[in-house]
Amino acid sequence: MFKKDFPYFQNSQIIYLDNGATTQKPKSVIDSQVEYYEKYCSNTHRSNFGHANKATQEFENTRVILKDFINASSKEEIIFTKGVTESINFIASSFAANFKTVIISSLEHHSNIVPWHMQGRSLGNGLEVVNCNDNLDFDMKHFEQLLKANPHSFVSVTHISNAFGKIHDIEAITKLAHSYGAVVLIDGAQSLAHMKVDMQYFDCDFFAISGHKTFAPTGVGAIYVKEKHLKELKPYQTGGATIHEVDFNSSTLLDSPYKFEAGTQNIAGVIGFGKALEYIDKIGYENIEAIENSVYTYLNEQLSTLPDIIFYNDISDSIGSRSFNFKGIVHDDIGILVDKMKIALRVGHHCAQPIMKKLGVKGTIRVSTAFYNNFKDVDALIVALKKALDMLKD
Amino acid sequence: MFKKDFPYFQNSQIIYLDNGATTQKPKSVIDSQVEYYEKYCSNTHRSNFGHANKATQEFENTRVILKDFINASSKEEIIFTKGVTESINFIASSFAANFKTVIISSLEHHSNIVPWHMQGRSLGNGLEVVNCNDNLDFDMKHFEQLLKANPHSFVSVTHISNAFGKIHDIEAITKLAHSYGAVVLIDGAQSLAHMKVDMQYFDCDFFAISGHKTFAPTGVGAIYVKEKHLKELKPYQTGGATIHEVDFNSSTLLDSPYKFEAGTQNIAGVIGFGKALEYIDKIGYENIEAIENSVYTYLNEQLSTLPDIIFYNDISDSIGSRSFNFKGIVHDDIGILVDKMKIALRVGHHCAQPIMKKLGVKGTIRVSTAFYNNFKDVDALIVALKKALDMLKD
Repeated sequence: MFKKDFPYFQNSQIIYLDNGATTQKPKSVIDSQVEYYEKYCSNTHRSNFGHANKATQEFENTRVILKDFINASSKEEIIFTKGVTESINFIASSFAANFKTVIISSLEHHSNIVPWHMQGRSLGNGLEVVNCNDNLDFDMKHFEQLLKANPHSFVSVTHISNAFGKIHDIEAITKLAHSYGAVVLIDGAQSLAHMKVDMQYFDCDFFAISGHKTFAPTGVGAIYVKEKHLKELKPYQTGGATIHEVDFNSSTLLDSPYKFEAGTQNIAGVIGFGKALEYIDKIGYENIEAIENSVYTYLNEQLSTLPDIIFYNDISDSIGSRSFNFKGIVHDDIGILVDKMKIALRVGHHCAQPIMKKLGVKGTIRVSTAFYNNFKDVDALIVALKKALDMLKD
Repeated sequence: MFKKDFPYFQNSQIIYLDNGATTQKPKSVIDSQVEYYEKYCSNTHRSNFGHANKATQEFENTRVILKDFINASSKEEIIFTKGVTESINFIASSFAANFKTVIISSLEHHSNIVPWHMQGRSLGNGLEVVNCNDNLDFDMKHFEQLLKANPHSFVSVTHISNAFGKIHDIEAITKLAHSYGAVVLIDGAQSLAHMKVDMQYFDCDFFAISGHKTFAPTGVGAIYVKEKHLKELKPYQTGGATIHEVDFNSSTLLDSPYKFEAGTQNIAGVIGFGKALEYIDKIGYENIEAIENSVYTYLNEQLSTLPDIIFYNDISDSIGSRSFNFKGIVHDDIGILVDKMKIALRVGHHCAQPIMKKLGVKGTIRVSTAFYNNFKDVDALIVALKKALDMLKD
């Protein structure tokens, strides 16, 4: 019923099940891009004529929308970036570089692993990894051991695993981490498309947000920074519109968030991000969560009927992505065959090689849904998978 | 005659003269955004289904277009960024941080000053500034003195001054710098909108490119990196799609350019950037340069008729921006008044406070043209300026 809001689905017969990689965009978001470019295209925060002021207003309006959306304390806590990868690299470089220990989970995306390697960290050498059990559940006991052994650590954990859909209990993780003096960053790349997040409830110190995975344009994201960290957070990039006063000897920076947003931002992208959040608000998370849970459950039931399917976790505490393989079948072959049957899904390691290695696989077949996916999509997927399996088993 | 290609001018009666801040976008660029979002919206370089492959192809096509456009040696030398500010911060952080001395010009934008301050540099303490004469010309003799005193420096100089339109002789600057073992970055933010650039002719080591100042969408840019520096250049951000192999201990990176483009890129923006370059190619730089020179000359002639106008440079070796003040008039007041007469220009320091201080002004009135501006725009500007001056002198 929601596909009508998304021009992509009017133009294509594709069953789109790669929402973990990027989501489709509602008409209101696409229209906002055209409107900005056709009607008031100007730079923001610099010039002072009518269209420039309107562009700045619309840009800043998204900051307020996002602040309300995630229940931040103030709009100063919202810093726009080009996406979650930049958000994590920013905090790794400008805040977390000097922490003795960084603790991550077993389910992290490369964007929350490699930035730590780049700081010279490896397992046991400034980087600790929380175990998960055979159902990919986060091991709170091991986490507490690591916190005890490494107080005042920097904890950087994903909210929802992009590869397996596993939801971490952020409120509990943050509470425990704080009790050992740790600071907590949450990778929220997969969050906003699927469920309500609340900074007051999570109580995390940083929360990285993706635009394009949340029905917004590409090239935009944000990092929530708890107010008390804004002063110690160093700018990651500097340049135009971050500066109060400059001479050749020194420069004095503006206050947050402006000192963190150097150069011309992705103006159209940020404006579109606001429209995406307004669209989600219109649908409502109660509806989104109810629809997604029912489709996700149905997906699991239907996949479970397929012969020789291998899952790596049950669907408890999970949403969005469902990863699996078939015994004796190369996942890449499934991807190639279902693509010809107009099913868009992803096969591979999903930028999460370490957990794949732990599971002893090179990759998986990943179906990742959004609230616009429905039972019919699942049925079409199952038909295609059956055909592909038949062809590969011949 | 070219305004018909730009929907902004169909929708608005504004005389747009703030092209130094951002340019308008031709219809083909805007259409490419809509087409991507409506017809094949997918992530690139990850998934392997039809639309994802098309998105990757279109994205990579821009790399080839840009490579040809600036006459780079190979497409591996083109790395996409979110804009010039990121490009400069990237190179400052990942290549130039350990250089003993950085040499800049007097006309730099804050984005080529503040990143050096952030490295703890100030005048004479790791940062040297080349003088300019009373016509804002780059002092080659002083430059050579600085190079002699500081061999093997990092030279970071703008091609075209955003505030004054002054064009630096990049070929001569690079040649001299190289003869003293220096490495050269050129801030090309204002270049591609106005004139042909050629990496083989310039022979610079790095060239920073803006999308949104070159008729492309916001949130996209690039850095050209001469092939011989690609190996020693460290990644600035890491994450998805930069990686060959990851475990929790270490990671091995892909080759250039992929290892430098972490996370989901501004896919729509990069695709639109390609369309903008194709559009410029269709018009041709011979035409663009001829039109701009004639409008710029006319602009200067007409401005010169206004009473008590103060220029800071003549129009030799200049294009795009023309900065001025009126004796006894606050530049901000002019901005406010001409805005009401539908003239969009910029008043202020144009993110170039040091040169403003040197000139003893807080800011200027800046008119910055693109090839779609014409004599009529200049006439309308002059009428508005005269009215504003009359009102302010009453």
